Amino acid sequence: MDTGERLRRIVADYRSWRQRCGAPTDGWGEGPLAGYTRPAVDELLTELSANLSHESTPWAAPLYLAHMTGEIPESVALAYFCAMLYNPNNVVPEASPVTTRLEDEVAADLCRLIGYRPGEGWAHLCSGGHAANYEAIWMARNLRAIPYAVAETPVTHHLVRGRTAAELANLPVQQVLALLSAATRLGADSQVLATARRLRRTGEIPAATLLASANAHYAWSKCADLLALREFGTIPTDHRHAIDVAALRDEVVQLADAGRPIAAVVACVGSSGEGSVDDLPAIIELRDDLERTRGIGFHLHVDAAYGGYFRSMWLDETGGFMPVDPSDPVAAALRSLPAADTVTVDPHKNAHAPYPAGAIVIRDRALCVTVGTDIGSYFADGQQDPRMPYAPYTLEGGRPGAAAAGVWALHRLYPLDRTGLGAVLAARRSAARRWSAHVDRLPAATTTTGQPVRLFSCFEPDLAIVNIGIAGPTVDDDNAGRLIRTLAGRPDPAWKSRLWLSTNRLIIDGRPQWTLRSCLMNDLTSAEITEAGMSLLHALQAVLVEQAVDPPE
Amino acid sequence: MDTGERLRRIVADYRSWRQRCGAPTDGWGEGPLAGYTRPAVDELLTELSANLSHESTPWAAPLYLAHMTGEIPESVALAYFCAMLYNPNNVVPEASPVTTRLEDEVAADLCRLIGYRPGEGWAHLCSGGHAANYEAIWMARNLRAIPYAVAETPVTHHLVRGRTAAELANLPVQQVLALLSAATRLGADSQVLATARRLRRTGEIPAATLLASANAHYAWSKCADLLALREFGTIPTDHRHAIDVAALRDEVVQLADAGRPIAAVVACVGSSGEGSVDDLPAIIELRDDLERTRGIGFHLHVDAAYGGYFRSMWLDETGGFMPVDPSDPVAAALRSLPAADTVTVDPHKNAHAPYPAGAIVIRDRALCVTVGTDIGSYFADGQQDPRMPYAPYTLEGGRPGAAAAGVWALHRLYPLDRTGLGAVLAARRSAARRWSAHVDRLPAATTTTGQPVRLFSCFEPDLAIVNIGIAGPTVDDDNAGRLIRTLAGRPDPAWKSRLWLSTNRLIIDGRPQWTLRSCLMNDLTSAEITEAGMSLLHALQAVLVEQAVDPPE
Repeated sequence: MDTGERLRRIVADYRSWRQRCGAPTDGWGEGPLAGYTRPAVDELLTELSANLSHESTPWAAPLYLAHMTGEIPESVALAYFCAMLYNPNNVVPEASPVTTRLEDEVAADLCRLIGYRPGEGWAHLCSGGHAANYEAIWMARNLRAIPYAVAETPVTHHLVRGRTAAELANLPVQQVLALLSAATRLGADSQVLATARRLRRTGEIPAATLLASANAHYAWSKCADLLALREFGTIPTDHRHAIDVAALRDEVVQLADAGRPIAAVVACVGSSGEGSVDDLPAIIELRDDLERTRGIGFHLHVDAAYGGYFRSMWLDETGGFMPVDPSDPVAAALRSLPAADTVTVDPHKNAHAPYPAGAIVIRDRALCVTVGTDIGSYFADGQQDPRMPYAPYTLEGGRPGAAAAGVWALHRLYPLDRTGLGAVLAARRSAARRWSAHVDRLPAATTTTGQPVRLFSCFEPDLAIVNIGIAGPTVDDDNAGRLIRTLAGRPDPAWKSRLWLSTNRLIIDGRPQWTLRSCLMNDLTSAEITEAGMSLLHALQAVLVEQAVDPPE
Repeated sequence: MDTGERLRRIVADYRSWRQRCGAPTDGWGEGPLAGYTRPAVDELLTELSANLSHESTPWAAPLYLAHMTGEIPESVALAYFCAMLYNPNNVVPEASPVTTRLEDEVAADLCRLIGYRPGEGWAHLCSGGHAANYEAIWMARNLRAIPYAVAETPVTHHLVRGRTAAELANLPVQQVLALLSAATRLGADSQVLATARRLRRTGEIPAATLLASANAHYAWSKCADLLALREFGTIPTDHRHAIDVAALRDEVVQLADAGRPIAAVVACVGSSGEGSVDDLPAIIELRDDLERTRGIGFHLHVDAAYGGYFRSMWLDETGGFMPVDPSDPVAAALRSLPAADTVTVDPHKNAHAPYPAGAIVIRDRALCVTVGTDIGSYFADGQQDPRMPYAPYTLEGGRPGAAAAGVWALHRLYPLDRTGLGAVLAARRSAARRWSAHVDRLPAATTTTGQPVRLFSCFEPDLAIVNIGIAGPTVDDDNAGRLIRTLAGRPDPAWKSRLWLSTNRLIIDGRPQWTLRSCLMNDLTSAEITEAGMSLLHALQAVLVEQAVDPPE
């Protein structure tokens, strides 16, 4: 069936829905104002379509490596369009009978992807990585007030008797959730939650601190401000551009010693600029060690907006994690993801779903209680409905049902294991590594004044982002920055013959340096990257050599 | 041109874009895994389309009055689909050259709709009313820390010399923005903003309070929690189900006297349950009066997610507000909207744009500085670019460019004045008023035990939501609730012959009572409401009469 025929059937089904509704089979808007809108529609759509066709960012070009946006499969766009016609809102099932079911399926898929148990864990779609991160930290922040509230509530006070102030500030997440369960059994859940809310709002307990690395996405700074957290401790990164776990340990211990609550530790699976993956096993070991030795812990949130779907590379068809090369730190990090408390993953990035499709995945759904007002039946011990209502426990409430249809179609067409999306992403990662190696093999060029200039790959990529630096005696940070911005923005009317790159600012050998960033998001790139890409890179180097000698004013 | 032909052209344009990119003209996903996905696509789309066609909520039915969701014009769905194919993200123009322009146009439309000056005001799309409300209050909350920071910064201290602590807590919004301008001229803007951030986070200044009415949307409770505001003062409502301005005044004065900052006063143009419109002129008079007499003020945010587009009813083709019947409080409220500081309006409600399309509209774009980290050129005195970058000043950063295309198409097809969307909404409001009057004209019925039972309209609707109560000596709140929930949920396989209603809980004569809520969102409703609708309502009343006598167990 071709695209035209698929669309014809989608529209025919939509028209029979309208007929069953007793509505004219033409859509709304062809009604009362039809007289003057009908001719305008064609003109408007023609103009819009032509502008988009001629001016849109060419994600589909094989050597488009600039932004972290890929194409969406045409079939998935059709699934989105199909659902959109019926205008479902996944805020409540009454407003979206079909697409809420699809979101329930997607939620189960995402739990399996991360390694959480469906029924115990939970997931939902949201507008993007910003919203998922906000929601995760909202829950984590609110959780920190619960032990204080348990201590202050007469009926539950005994549950934390003997705890020191420092322990109350940073009890392990699972212990706090156990306190909530115990409070529920004592009939005091509403009271504890209300007290926790009061304590947070009146400032009677210390504001919590968010710990994230220096290369965390700019949304994290917004997040800390929005949630009124103490400025996050900006942990430095190591030579792999991952969070420096020793520095993180120092910061955590210092806060724990001072009895100051840690809202969450944010680790990254795929930083925006570098695609770097933090050493999750070491962070989890730090958390477990603190729990063993001092009875304290922290909420571990993983921002895997970009990198989360790469976990499918190592999943077999039953969802089991495959044996991996023990020397691959990325595989080890992704294997340990189920030990995180919350994970952000964006289907609209590496799963190629249409915007808006961010997602939050939650290890223990009881955590949602911290942003609700009392404990519903979804959290009662024993009998849990695998589905949960979206309105009370989500930051945004309403969400387009069509987005769920898009992600659902993607997950069905590309199963989240090594045979499906995992195969696509494995090829992408290999292509990035080849690209990185090729950059390093480019011979140094010599400027007319006899100075060598060379391009180099700043690090072997963890996922599929490569950063290219420029080195040479005549290249200082100022002119490297100017050159790189010029090259990245080089206009070229022939989309397909251009190498599209973006820029990044990276700490290399302790100094901030400009780099050319290439983010592989295109399934054609794997094939093209070594041939056309390399010759274009060579051409870029030639431009560099010229400009490095005689920089433009 | 019919729908099929329009779609054919959209797809053809998309394919020529792919060709220019040097990509196969089939979409992504028909690539490396095509072998096993191609047959699956047809099956998947067929199943999805059939399920949606048979099970979707029938918004298109003329007597569908239950949820606050209408249809989207087919032409607007096509505009959305057309843009979606190119996968634009309005986070930055490089990722969305066309749709960022469309969002700039939409932003200007929304400023004109509310009565703000484009260039001075600003607007942007977001995931929905929740996000718009969060962002507005985030700005308003942050603003409250600025005067304290100005007082603490040596270079700017003199700007607030002589101000009392109570004045610093609640300086009028425009005066705070003027302080920021003055700080910028003194080169101290970054310092003041950093100090404000520190003061907010360390709890050195009192937490701000949010004031909203008792019937405010449930998102407001989430908002107060998210932003760590003091629990909002839940102002009671009056007999029109609007905020009780006398009670609001008492609360404001009490907080002002105590020197406690008010994050914002939230007024409503179209409450979710009742569609009621708060008395904005009186609230603005309260604010202006406080400013005149005591030198203090508050940020006024209007939640017009549902009602904002009704303002187009009174706009002429040049954007001027028409002379209105002075006895219409709704017209007076909408005329005064430009005096609010921020307004939430949802194009995906009464403008019938596809989800996700919420929007925030901001009177003075300088307010955005409070959530950024320094004052960019967009806020420098004198020369303002009418466009602003979306990433640094929005809660969500990335947003689907396709959503901008949807809203843009809607605004172009239905101009935001009395000749366009205003005419549609005027007809809708009239239909709601006729519906309300008809309910009141229904004769009382008599139960078999001789007791009268009648349906009544709880109030004359401000916009297009009618609440229907049940009265009679045998009807207490318990059985009214049971009856109403039964009637609202009455299954009926014939969508077109059913009256679809939802429920609400309303304070009438001081007592909470169950009501049948009808929300008119359909442009067919205007015609059908008085005929088919009335006979169905009569039939419902007959069911009521039976069940009121002999309530089911």
